[in-house]
Amino acid sequence: MVPVTASTTGPVLVIGSGLLGASIGLGLRHLGVSVYLRDSSPTTEAVAQDIGAGRSVRAAGGDVPEPVLVVVAAPPDVVAELVVQALTDHPGATVLDIASVKAPILAAVAASGADLTRYVGTHPMTGREKSGPVAARGELFTSMPWVICPGPETGARAITAAKNLAVDLGATITVLDPTEHDETVALISHVPQVMSSLLASRLQDTPLHHLSLAGQGLRDTTRIAGSDPGLWVQILSANARPVVRSLYEVREDIERLIATLEDPAADGARLDIAQLMAEGNAGQARIPGKHGGAPRAFATFTVAVDDTPGTIAKLLTEIGEIGVNLEDLRLEHSPGQPVGLVVASVDPNRREGLVDELQERGWKVVQ
Amino acid sequence: MVPVTASTTGPVLVIGSGLLGASIGLGLRHLGVSVYLRDSSPTTEAVAQDIGAGRSVRAAGGDVPEPVLVVVAAPPDVVAELVVQALTDHPGATVLDIASVKAPILAAVAASGADLTRYVGTHPMTGREKSGPVAARGELFTSMPWVICPGPETGARAITAAKNLAVDLGATITVLDPTEHDETVALISHVPQVMSSLLASRLQDTPLHHLSLAGQGLRDTTRIAGSDPGLWVQILSANARPVVRSLYEVREDIERLIATLEDPAADGARLDIAQLMAEGNAGQARIPGKHGGAPRAFATFTVAVDDTPGTIAKLLTEIGEIGVNLEDLRLEHSPGQPVGLVVASVDPNRREGLVDELQERGWKVVQ
Repeated sequence: MVPVTASTTGPVLVIGSGLLGASIGLGLRHLGVSVYLRDSSPTTEAVAQDIGAGRSVRAAGGDVPEPVLVVVAAPPDVVAELVVQALTDHPGATVLDIASVKAPILAAVAASGADLTRYVGTHPMTGREKSGPVAARGELFTSMPWVICPGPETGARAITAAKNLAVDLGATITVLDPTEHDETVALISHVPQVMSSLLASRLQDTPLHHLSLAGQGLRDTTRIAGSDPGLWVQILSANARPVVRSLYEVREDIERLIATLEDPAADGARLDIAQLMAEGNAGQARIPGKHGGAPRAFATFTVAVDDTPGTIAKLLTEIGEIGVNLEDLRLEHSPGQPVGLVVASVDPNRREGLVDELQERGWKVVQ
Repeated sequence: MVPVTASTTGPVLVIGSGLLGASIGLGLRHLGVSVYLRDSSPTTEAVAQDIGAGRSVRAAGGDVPEPVLVVVAAPPDVVAELVVQALTDHPGATVLDIASVKAPILAAVAASGADLTRYVGTHPMTGREKSGPVAARGELFTSMPWVICPGPETGARAITAAKNLAVDLGATITVLDPTEHDETVALISHVPQVMSSLLASRLQDTPLHHLSLAGQGLRDTTRIAGSDPGLWVQILSANARPVVRSLYEVREDIERLIATLEDPAADGARLDIAQLMAEGNAGQARIPGKHGGAPRAFATFTVAVDDTPGTIAKLLTEIGEIGVNLEDLRLEHSPGQPVGLVVASVDPNRREGLVDELQERGWKVVQ
C-alpha cells in the first residue's frame, strides 16, 4: 500500500513528537525523507529520535537545515500559536497542523496576520489507546482517512504538500472546508462520544451481578466511554458550538420521549415512540458499509465455538475453503459459560449454502 | 452443551408460536418432550408444526392431553390475559411467560385473583433479527442468560419447572425479583436502545460523503438503532417507569454539559467536562468482561489484511499455532480501500511475543 518513493520532499520539521508526530516521522524516515524533531519536552524529543522518527533538533545543535515542510503535531490548545511561529520562522516552508478541530485554529492563525497562503489545516483520523513516542508506528495512517481542510487563502502548493504527506503515509484523502469538517466530526465522533459517556455513567451504581446480564448491545454502545477524559476536554472545548447544537436536538428528543413515557397509555403515545425509533432506523441506515460504499444488507449467522486456541481459526479456514468472503465478524461472549459465539456477516446469496456446508462439517450454527 | 435427557416433563403447551415459542418447541422436541402449540394465527400454528416445533392444537382436534407446563410466548400486550386464562383452564399446570418486562405482568395476574403459586415470570435474553416460526432455532437459548423472576407467592414447583426448562434449552439461569429485573433491563438494554436511536436520528440529514469518514466508534454506538420500532414500542411502553427515571438523569447530565460548552473558557468548565467523561469511564469499567467474570484489561493489536477469502482465517490459524487464545476480535473497514483491519485482544503478557512472531511471519501489524 505504502509507495516505495516519497512525494514529500524534505527536510521536514515535526513540532511535537508524541504519538502522532513521531508516527509521521517514522513513516517519512522509512521512505528516506529527512526529518527533524522538536518537542517542548527534551525527553520526548530524545525518545522520538531513539525510535528512529528523525533527528532531534536539540541533539543536532545549531546544525538544522531550513525545512520545506513543517508539521505541527502538538496538543490542540497550543497548535495555533506554534503554526504562527513556524510561518514566521520559516518563510519558505509550507506549514500544516494535524489537530482534530480545524475552524478555531484557522481563525486564530488568520487573526495573527500570518501568511495564510502557506498554511493548511489537516486531520488524520487515526490514533491508538496509548500515547507518547514509544507507542508510535509508521503504519498508524495506513488506510485511515486524512482530511485536508484548506482555508480560502491557502495556496495550491500547500494543499499539494498536505496531500503528498497523506498519500506517502498510506492514508485516504478527503477535502473539506474547515467548518464543514468541524460539524462533521461533531456528528460522527464527538456527539457519539458524549452519548456513550452519558449512557455508561448510568452504570456507576448498578450491582455487578446485574451487569453480568449485559449483552453485546450494551458493550457496543459504551465501548468508547472508556476514552481518555483529558483528551476529550480539549476536543469538546475546541469544538463546543457544533456539539452543543446536536445536544440541543438530543435534549428535545429526550423531553419528547419522557413526556410520552410518563403516560404510555395516552392517545398517540405508541405512534410517538415508534416515530422516534424509526428516525433512529433512518439515521443508522445512512452509515456506509465496508469500504465507504453504500450501506449493504449482509446476512449474518452465529456459530457456537469452544473457547480454545485455534477453534475460531479453524472455522474461518473452513469458511475460506468453502470460498465465501467474510464481510464482518465479531465475537460475543456469554456470562458464565466457556463458549464463544462467532457472529459472521456474508453476502446474503451465500449464507444458506455456507450454513448448510458448515453444519455438515459439524459446526454448531445457533442462529 | 444441551443435555441428552430432559428435566422438563411433558406434555408442554406453548401458547404463541412465533420465533421464541417455536424455538422452545423445537428445543424440547429435540429432547423428546411432548409439545402442543397454540397460536391466534392458524397459519403460524401450522408452520410451527411443520418445522417440527410440536403438535398443532387445531390439527389435533380435541385430542390434546392435559399439560404439565404451559409456556406463554405471546406478544407482551396480551401475555397477562393469556397467563390468567391458562391458570384457569389448566388447574394442575405450572404456567410461565417469557416476556421481556416482568412486574406489570405479575401485577395484572395478581389483580385477576388467579392462583399465583403456579405462575412464574421468566425472561430468556435472546433473539434474532428475524421473527416468526420459520426463523426458529432450538439452539436460540444456548449459552444465553435466562432470568427467572418468581413473585412472593410463586411456589417451589413452579420455580423448579422454569429452571428445568431453561437448563434443558442450554441457557444460563439468573434469579431476580420482578421489579429488580425490570430496572436492570431498563439500564442494560432499554436505555442503551433509546440512546443509540437518539444518536442515530441525528444522522438523518448528514451528507453521505461525510458519513463515509465514520469510524468504528459511530458504528458501534448506533448498531442497535437498526432495531424494529414495533417491538420497541411494546417494550418501552411496558417498562416506562424505570426507563424514564434514567432518562431524567441523562437529561440532567446533558443540561450540565450544554451549560458548560456554551462557555468552554469559563472557570471550572474543563474540570466539569473531565468529570462527566470520568463518570463514563467509571460506569464502562464495571461492565464484566468475557464469561461474566470481573472486567479484565486485555491488550489489543491491529493487523492490516487483504480483503480476500481465507486471509483472516490464515491469520487466526497462525495465532492458534503460536498458542495464544483470542479474547476478542473485530473487523474494521476503511473507507475507499480494499483492506481490512483485524483488531484482536489477547492476554497482555502474550501480546508482545505474539506481535513479534506475527511480524516475523510477514503479517502487517499496524498498531
